[in-house]
Amino acid sequence: MEEENKTQTTTTNAGREENVIYIGKKPTINYVLAVVTQFNSGAGEVTVKARGLAISKAVDVFEIVKNRYLTNVRDKEIRTSSEELTNEDGTKTKVSAIQIKMVS
Amino acid sequence: MEEENKTQTTTTNAGREENVIYIGKKPTINYVLAVVTQFNSGAGEVTVKARGLAISKAVDVFEIVKNRYLTNVRDKEIRTSSEELTNEDGTKTKVSAIQIKMVS
Repeated sequence: MEEENKTQTTTTNAGREENVIYIGKKPTINYVLAVVTQFNSGAGEVTVKARGLAISKAVDVFEIVKNRYLTNVRDKEIRTSSEELTNEDGTKTKVSAIQIKMVS
Repeated sequence: MEEENKTQTTTTNAGREENVIYIGKKPTINYVLAVVTQFNSGAGEVTVKARGLAISKAVDVFEIVKNRYLTNVRDKEIRTSSEELTNEDGTKTKVSAIQIKMVS
């Protein structure tokens, strides 16, 4: 019975995305503080994700975190991708995305 | 004599930045075609660099090149940095930058 519970927990953890912060329209400092808070709560890895014009803001967040707040943070992996969005009229638009995985 | 010339050439090559395209305010397709042209001229590596809001455009350029034009191109390295600019009034502004090194 205990064994079964353990397995379930592991599966659940693998399925969800841990410590991911999506960069949107809020001020940059909001996301900076969100990342810092996650690391200070004991996270070993925090990932920021952004699409389109928010990509620049994601890079700002990473640079500000490591230069001003947590100098031991560095990028473990920076990946880009393309995502397809469906517009209200049914047409499709491609948009670039970035994910920056930070480790402390 | 020949030996000396060889050494000089090597030094010169190490000093200059080869196949670097700076992303600015022109339309994205201009930079896409610049990258494609470099690869088609025999370059094994092409790097795009951008600062500030042009960072998103640099990611677009990379995604469009590899998804639509040269499907064997991939990113060898994606790096971010912070640069300090001096404004006209002497004050300083920090701006994030990205460089995406592509290989074919």
